[in-house]
Amino acid sequence: MNNTSIAGMKRTHMCGELRLEHAGQTVTVNGWVDRVRDNGGVLFLLLRDRAGIVQCTFDKSVNADLFDIAFTCRTEFVVAVKGKLVARDAAAVNKKMPTGEVEIIAEDIRILSKAETTPFEIDDTKEVGDQIRLKYRYLDLRRPSMQRNLMLRHRVTQVARNYFDEHGFLEIETPMLTKSTPEGARDYLVPSRVHPGKFYALPQSPQQYKQLLMLSGMDRYIQITRCFRDEDLRADRQPEFTQIDLEMSFVEQDDVIAVNEGFLQRVFKEVLDVDIQLPLPRMTWQDAMDKYGSDKPDVRFGFEIKDISDIAKDCSFKVFKDTVENGGTVRLINVNGYADKFPRKEIDKLGEFVKTYRAKGLAWMKLAADGSMTSSFAKFLSEDEIAAIKERAGAKENDLLFVVADANWQTAAVALGALRCELAKRLGLAKKDDFKLLWVTEFPQFEYSEEENRLVAMHHPFTAPMDEDIPLLDTDPAKVRAKAYDIILNGCELGGGSIRIHDPELQTKMFEALGFTEEKAKEQFGHLITAFSYGAPPHGGLAYGLDRLCMLLAGLDSIRDVIAFPKVQNASDLMMNCPDVVDDKQLDDLSIAVTRVEEEPQA
Amino acid sequence: MNNTSIAGMKRTHMCGELRLEHAGQTVTVNGWVDRVRDNGGVLFLLLRDRAGIVQCTFDKSVNADLFDIAFTCRTEFVVAVKGKLVARDAAAVNKKMPTGEVEIIAEDIRILSKAETTPFEIDDTKEVGDQIRLKYRYLDLRRPSMQRNLMLRHRVTQVARNYFDEHGFLEIETPMLTKSTPEGARDYLVPSRVHPGKFYALPQSPQQYKQLLMLSGMDRYIQITRCFRDEDLRADRQPEFTQIDLEMSFVEQDDVIAVNEGFLQRVFKEVLDVDIQLPLPRMTWQDAMDKYGSDKPDVRFGFEIKDISDIAKDCSFKVFKDTVENGGTVRLINVNGYADKFPRKEIDKLGEFVKTYRAKGLAWMKLAADGSMTSSFAKFLSEDEIAAIKERAGAKENDLLFVVADANWQTAAVALGALRCELAKRLGLAKKDDFKLLWVTEFPQFEYSEEENRLVAMHHPFTAPMDEDIPLLDTDPAKVRAKAYDIILNGCELGGGSIRIHDPELQTKMFEALGFTEEKAKEQFGHLITAFSYGAPPHGGLAYGLDRLCMLLAGLDSIRDVIAFPKVQNASDLMMNCPDVVDDKQLDDLSIAVTRVEEEPQA
Repeated sequence: MNNTSIAGMKRTHMCGELRLEHAGQTVTVNGWVDRVRDNGGVLFLLLRDRAGIVQCTFDKSVNADLFDIAFTCRTEFVVAVKGKLVARDAAAVNKKMPTGEVEIIAEDIRILSKAETTPFEIDDTKEVGDQIRLKYRYLDLRRPSMQRNLMLRHRVTQVARNYFDEHGFLEIETPMLTKSTPEGARDYLVPSRVHPGKFYALPQSPQQYKQLLMLSGMDRYIQITRCFRDEDLRADRQPEFTQIDLEMSFVEQDDVIAVNEGFLQRVFKEVLDVDIQLPLPRMTWQDAMDKYGSDKPDVRFGFEIKDISDIAKDCSFKVFKDTVENGGTVRLINVNGYADKFPRKEIDKLGEFVKTYRAKGLAWMKLAADGSMTSSFAKFLSEDEIAAIKERAGAKENDLLFVVADANWQTAAVALGALRCELAKRLGLAKKDDFKLLWVTEFPQFEYSEEENRLVAMHHPFTAPMDEDIPLLDTDPAKVRAKAYDIILNGCELGGGSIRIHDPELQTKMFEALGFTEEKAKEQFGHLITAFSYGAPPHGGLAYGLDRLCMLLAGLDSIRDVIAFPKVQNASDLMMNCPDVVDDKQLDDLSIAVTRVEEEPQA
Repeated sequence: MNNTSIAGMKRTHMCGELRLEHAGQTVTVNGWVDRVRDNGGVLFLLLRDRAGIVQCTFDKSVNADLFDIAFTCRTEFVVAVKGKLVARDAAAVNKKMPTGEVEIIAEDIRILSKAETTPFEIDDTKEVGDQIRLKYRYLDLRRPSMQRNLMLRHRVTQVARNYFDEHGFLEIETPMLTKSTPEGARDYLVPSRVHPGKFYALPQSPQQYKQLLMLSGMDRYIQITRCFRDEDLRADRQPEFTQIDLEMSFVEQDDVIAVNEGFLQRVFKEVLDVDIQLPLPRMTWQDAMDKYGSDKPDVRFGFEIKDISDIAKDCSFKVFKDTVENGGTVRLINVNGYADKFPRKEIDKLGEFVKTYRAKGLAWMKLAADGSMTSSFAKFLSEDEIAAIKERAGAKENDLLFVVADANWQTAAVALGALRCELAKRLGLAKKDDFKLLWVTEFPQFEYSEEENRLVAMHHPFTAPMDEDIPLLDTDPAKVRAKAYDIILNGCELGGGSIRIHDPELQTKMFEALGFTEEKAKEQFGHLITAFSYGAPPHGGLAYGLDRLCMLLAGLDSIRDVIAFPKVQNASDLMMNCPDVVDDKQLDDLSIAVTRVEEEPQA
């Protein structure tokens, strides 16, 4: 067998770190052959490692044996090269490569591993299908962009761990084999061999455990941990995902926010060298919904929503008038300065767009640069009414107003909110490197569940109501606001949390407001209620979606690109080929049987 | 409702950090009432948080209202106390408490949370049953010793993350929902809802993933990750446990060892302020077995094993003679200096002890302080033979020799190895704060499986053989040694790893030696074999058992004490009451049915 050992050929430098300052040194590099170019007796072998690519040069006239070995190297061979690092001739300098001012004049080469032709080229400039990328993920991960993504993720977690350590947080691991909870998303279950007929559940989050850790006096807890939800996957969801999960004792909302703002500032500085000004803006949930039609407002651009119900109420346009008279609302956004970008045909298509958000239609008014006006509804209005609307909208030349009237204010707001984001995207106003963070606060404590025909907790039943709203629990619970907060980045929820109820009396009131009998509360949360009876500190916390945080920091569109081995939409792993069938003996050991099997796609 | 808010009463200091240097300051502390002592109009309230305990003093004659509130406080109430920190009178100084030189003269108190009487006292000096500790784990974790354990664990993981980060390792998360592997321990399975009849498995270790990451050019990987084994629990095992898992590319064994020695030195220094001298001792597997009868030798004490087969071979004692003539071995240990600690009755009981290790019996020779000798076998031997044995054993006055003869050298060695550890334990020679680290190297590549009647991989089939032993793969595979290494601390395996095979040709040879057909190898490891064909770097790694590392650093006997929420022997969680039955709908969603149910214990 050939010598494929690294002995005697261990790297002195990473390929990508070599610079002019190293010129004159004898260096050894280890890596993958990125490209080989034979320039008539001079062979250029580009060698790649995690740090980058460097050129190794073999001159046949100097050493024919060495040249011949290098000549057998194909793309993705793993080799070690030793040689003298020299400055390139001025004409040969490659400004596009960080190592482009130097090259290694090879004095030795060893082939550590040969390579078959890969199913796709390891090249960031080439588009490769998702299926094949994920089947050969270990090759996909050789792409410099994917390596950068995982390095960024490493840096984010490292910053988190150091920052929270400095702030007195203890990293404490909570169980993965835990108990199925009836509320929330669908659990992944794990059959128990020792207890036939019983099951563990994989955690959807360590919520209960972290609260118990506060009850245990651990004071400040952090964990970067895997969570599981057996939901049908949307584009941006994975069956297993990672949270930065934390909880603090003896705090109020401002304390949780302050410590997390410090963290975010540190992450942006250390990972991207971006300065974030503190304190971050805060917006109440009601303001976010009113102005942005979203509880995760994207404030990188304007087009804020304005309410014109008061103008519409008495106007001559029946659709507007009737909507308001029946308790509804009429709202608009002004796409100011971009009217010329939207011809009539585009505008009509946007009507279809808002319908997917349950709006009934989209009225519009376009002000051309020459001052002329076209509109779907202006003909029904008086001059004064038009003037009032224009004034409310701050409308000038080349502005475009979109109006939604709806019986439900949230429907109107959400439709316009979605529209403003869609338009900003089309106009290129939502820049990925323009990082706009803010807190949304004062979330409603409850939301109405049509399925269950009752109020349900918007966060969870342990979220504390705002002090001034506690009396409303008895009189008008739908109006109660919670000590809950989300941190938003560019229209995405990075994380969320709340102050928890630590007073058993208040917890009882909360269960009552949720329509839980004492019995039902005990059945579902008995061990927690018991735990709280032994002395609970005021506490609160927050959890970040790490995958999404990394995706946004890296300027990417899919969390898959910041996860080493993600699953596809149908929750399977194409590289490992799982889930898969198992032996009957394994099932028998677990006292379970399969009742249905998947139909395999026809060959 | 009473004001149970922390507003206005947030701590300025942790209870346990107050010292004389803070005297004169107005401080606020938050915590749990550890004890209340009424000294006739002066009430001492001891308040406890993660950092320790401080005394708060309420004088009825100064402020009767405040005193009355404090008077209602019972153990485990959560309170905030504000007051002036003062030096105690010399007579009142408590040297046993770190805060014993000061007290807080209370000026305000707020009860944040009342507490029922806890099922056991939060007191490290009180023994509490395991079952009740684990059922009320959140109370058990209030004990200062448990808080110290989890703080130590936090520190260990933090040191690991920083050390390996500094050494170029990337933290990369690998999947929890992965594929069941036929080899190794029993998997925990997770039924798939989307793919009826198919299952994920929870990982026993990220072994395949970390090797794939090396193939992907990630170069250096670390993860502190949960692993799962559905085995019947021994005292020191948990169904889910945590590994510090790492892998490096372009390295040999010495490189892996060097980087890990640096890590261990850092951990001991930063966590315990203990200096570890590097390099650590190394011992081959053969030496470890010969001298200590164990592949995890405890070298805190002597009593090393000596082989006397050559003396026994020609001796007059038939048992010894026959054993050696039939290819067996006769070995001994010398419990030097402790003969007087073991009366005859004790010695006889030790005969039973070694039988649990499959030894057939225990011969012995005792040298009293006065030079007299008693023995179970000496009467069968000549003076010369006795003298030769004594010389080999280095026997002097007050020494005690134990001899085992067995057809199988490993049986004799293991029995004597277990005996020397047992005796050292009884003699108090195995001190928990005497940290003796060493590497065991040159493990056998294969071990014989009686079950399968063939050689199986001792580590796994990707472990590289030692270069000089590669020819033996064809001629005498049982003699092949592996590039495998374990790190041992005080007789426990802290971790282990190996250099992996990166050469597909050698891998094929290895599969052949293991009796795998090409087909079987492909079936079980197809995706890995494919992956290796696209260019694999030389690589190797190691994994530590984090639970055990923390247990040993903390000087504890059970890993449960360094795990926040452990499971008991039957793999159930007494606090959460899991595993548990689930709804039929959940099972139906997963296309599985229960075939047997657990019998509940009779009431």
